[in-house]
Amino acid sequence: MSDQKAQIGVIGLAVMGKNLALNIESRGFTVGVYNRHRNRTDEMMRDHSEKKLVPSYTIEDFVNSLEKPRRILMMVKAGKGTDAVIDELIPLLDKGDVLIDGGNTNFHDTMARNAKLDKSGINFIGMGVSGGELGALQGPSLMPGGQKEAYDLVAPILTQIAAKAEDGKPCVTYIGPNGAGHYVKMVHNGIEYGDEELIDEAYNVMRNVLGLSVDEMADIFADWNKGELDSYLVEITADILTRKDDLGDKNTPIVDMILDRGANKGTGKWSSETALDGGAPQSVITEAVYARYISMLKDERVAASKVLPEDVEKVNLSDDEKKEYIEKIREALYFGKVMSYAQGFEQMRIDSERYDWNLQYGQLAQIWREGCIIRAQFLQKITDAFEKDPELKNLLLDDYFKDITAKYQKAIREVVALSVKAGIPVPAFAAAISYYDSYRAEVLPANLLQAQRDYFGAHTYERTDREGNFHYTWYEEQ
Amino acid sequence: MSDQKAQIGVIGLAVMGKNLALNIESRGFTVGVYNRHRNRTDEMMRDHSEKKLVPSYTIEDFVNSLEKPRRILMMVKAGKGTDAVIDELIPLLDKGDVLIDGGNTNFHDTMARNAKLDKSGINFIGMGVSGGELGALQGPSLMPGGQKEAYDLVAPILTQIAAKAEDGKPCVTYIGPNGAGHYVKMVHNGIEYGDEELIDEAYNVMRNVLGLSVDEMADIFADWNKGELDSYLVEITADILTRKDDLGDKNTPIVDMILDRGANKGTGKWSSETALDGGAPQSVITEAVYARYISMLKDERVAASKVLPEDVEKVNLSDDEKKEYIEKIREALYFGKVMSYAQGFEQMRIDSERYDWNLQYGQLAQIWREGCIIRAQFLQKITDAFEKDPELKNLLLDDYFKDITAKYQKAIREVVALSVKAGIPVPAFAAAISYYDSYRAEVLPANLLQAQRDYFGAHTYERTDREGNFHYTWYEEQ
Repeated sequence: MSDQKAQIGVIGLAVMGKNLALNIESRGFTVGVYNRHRNRTDEMMRDHSEKKLVPSYTIEDFVNSLEKPRRILMMVKAGKGTDAVIDELIPLLDKGDVLIDGGNTNFHDTMARNAKLDKSGINFIGMGVSGGELGALQGPSLMPGGQKEAYDLVAPILTQIAAKAEDGKPCVTYIGPNGAGHYVKMVHNGIEYGDEELIDEAYNVMRNVLGLSVDEMADIFADWNKGELDSYLVEITADILTRKDDLGDKNTPIVDMILDRGANKGTGKWSSETALDGGAPQSVITEAVYARYISMLKDERVAASKVLPEDVEKVNLSDDEKKEYIEKIREALYFGKVMSYAQGFEQMRIDSERYDWNLQYGQLAQIWREGCIIRAQFLQKITDAFEKDPELKNLLLDDYFKDITAKYQKAIREVVALSVKAGIPVPAFAAAISYYDSYRAEVLPANLLQAQRDYFGAHTYERTDREGNFHYTWYEEQ
Repeated sequence: MSDQKAQIGVIGLAVMGKNLALNIESRGFTVGVYNRHRNRTDEMMRDHSEKKLVPSYTIEDFVNSLEKPRRILMMVKAGKGTDAVIDELIPLLDKGDVLIDGGNTNFHDTMARNAKLDKSGINFIGMGVSGGELGALQGPSLMPGGQKEAYDLVAPILTQIAAKAEDGKPCVTYIGPNGAGHYVKMVHNGIEYGDEELIDEAYNVMRNVLGLSVDEMADIFADWNKGELDSYLVEITADILTRKDDLGDKNTPIVDMILDRGANKGTGKWSSETALDGGAPQSVITEAVYARYISMLKDERVAASKVLPEDVEKVNLSDDEKKEYIEKIREALYFGKVMSYAQGFEQMRIDSERYDWNLQYGQLAQIWREGCIIRAQFLQKITDAFEKDPELKNLLLDDYFKDITAKYQKAIREVVALSVKAGIPVPAFAAAISYYDSYRAEVLPANLLQAQRDYFGAHTYERTDREGNFHYTWYEEQ
């Protein structure tokens, strides 16, 4: 290879690392590439021999192939794999170099690594990357967190490789210190779980309460995608429902051949665990996680379906009523989505204060507008809301969202009531309306809870009419 | 003091430690007592000078005051406090001694401590203690986990101080190795959160949908406590609702003076975090945790209640309809309780396998029948179910519980539908019926989810008609 130094290096050439390297190269940068096993490097160089790629076969050569301060993007397996690479790199790096972890890393680990490396003067960025394989190649949404000066060193590259929103703005911004980037990616994934579950519940209600066919639903989702629900996930749902079995009967919808066991890779779970830990009431996303867990119990469900009693209302709707309900389900879906995002942003507010990250909520919604899985028209409304009021306590208090809740709450109430009576589960829809009714409740029954806790555990309670902690003499004490 | 050695020692003489020491002494044992600050020891000896207590003022004297093998019960603040005491004790103890942590400890910590101490031959028991101050004194429910041989050394004392169920059996049993005891106590507390939230939702619906008075509800809960809902928490709820303000107007119910901010001490949260981590769909308890979190946002709620739109059905029930709904709410509460326990026991089954604990589910329900906060007639039904079938996969599959779900599912469907339409939040009720309808669903919409995941992330899916993992060509790939 030439003596020209590479402007950035990528370690780990599995599909995400390879595609990010190609994306960077396509913007005019020279990219150093290195993989622990050389076969991936060889393959990449063979397939892309004409490109400005600088391959290395030892980590020392790789580090030496880079301009200083060095910029290194690690795309390796999260966890011990990441630590192993960092340990190899530390003795080879200089103060001021920037190491980026673009893996699916838990933000607690990123916080620890950032603190550890910061002591030796090496910058460490934990960067969430969303958009899958295709996004990595064509333009992902990027969520980098770490030292601000480190971000400034890589920003010229990141802004070029990121997806561009309609207004031309790149889908990347500085998220905040240490673990903030991976944290925000985690919440993004939690929100993605919520979006998917809400869509899947809408599908399930249309199918099993209204009795619609897969073809009818394909048209409905395509139609919804033209309006305020316009989003990547609704778009692909419409497309999926048009597809037929590729292995068996060519007239059978592929969804009917797919087993209903919903897998997960853990980030939705992390998001809910973090919400629980921080005191954020993130019920819609959590129900989405639990819905996947129940779905995994396929054998138990099949057995239970044969023996557990059913006492439900038969639903017989006229065609006109069905049409009305389709619109109600659309409204319920949008209402549920608003609740899920309100909870997600509430969670980020709580943790931003907890970890002193100073998250810029409006910008987060902005960089999710393209590139990532939850990209949607709707996100602009969130940006607008936080631009109008950066101190906004809850999305629901913004005029646009208030208007949505005014218009659509009746629909979600009816859809939940109908589905519950008909025996079709709608855990996320139900959590959404419960959250709304709880959040707008001046008084919740936690007064009784506090009395109970004081009764059995002398935990004391506050009063409505005076300051302090009080204990009632419920019984004669020993 | 006399030269007689104490048969067991208690470290930490705050109210729980003091009451457990007095309980043990009252069964005829000589008890060594020690507290880091001597004022508590002095106070205890002054108040109970006639009792067989052996006070020590250094930890060395305390250890020397005990029979060998020594049995030491630590009742100190969980976390670093516990580690500090253990570190002080280790050099003073001998192989075969038994150290018991009776604090509110996270089971992961107990697992680590048990493993660490086991290396030096010192037995370590993590013991859940439920029943509050009064239970500690008169008879708690005890959940000890650790080495079986260590349990055998302390069993003669534990079985005497534990609460006794109606059939005379003590509310203590060997739970399992290492962290099993603290784990089961954690699930107990999660279940307690669920029980409380379900009761509080029943109260809230009666109050705000049916428009009942506090006095009327006091009678209703007292009445419910005579039937299958017979339990400590329903009993104290009835009692609480009869009580009047102790500081202001003597005619105002005390619940109306208590601020509706539901506090928590973390074990319910741990229980949900563990469920998420292990893949257990524990939605009822989690909604109970989130209900507390939303309740804590009192200022936000008060502000939101003034501005967020409301579009709900006015409920106008005749007196007869009200009576019918009171019975439906009772049935909904019992149905919700069954779901919450089904989820809790499902969680324990998953984790028992994960950690190789061999939990005896029937015995767990048995030792909760007295002493602890969730004590209830109902628990006998769980014991019966697991005695009939120790391999029972889910409580719902037992005949008794199947019968309950057959009889009461209509009621909970109606109560949820009515409350959701009326704008009164019922998150735990809704989670309960969603869980039931999901668990008995042969097909859930996770087929669509798997299609979505394969579409955007090439995550592959399983099929209904053949083995293997499949990927669909959703679009032309680069």
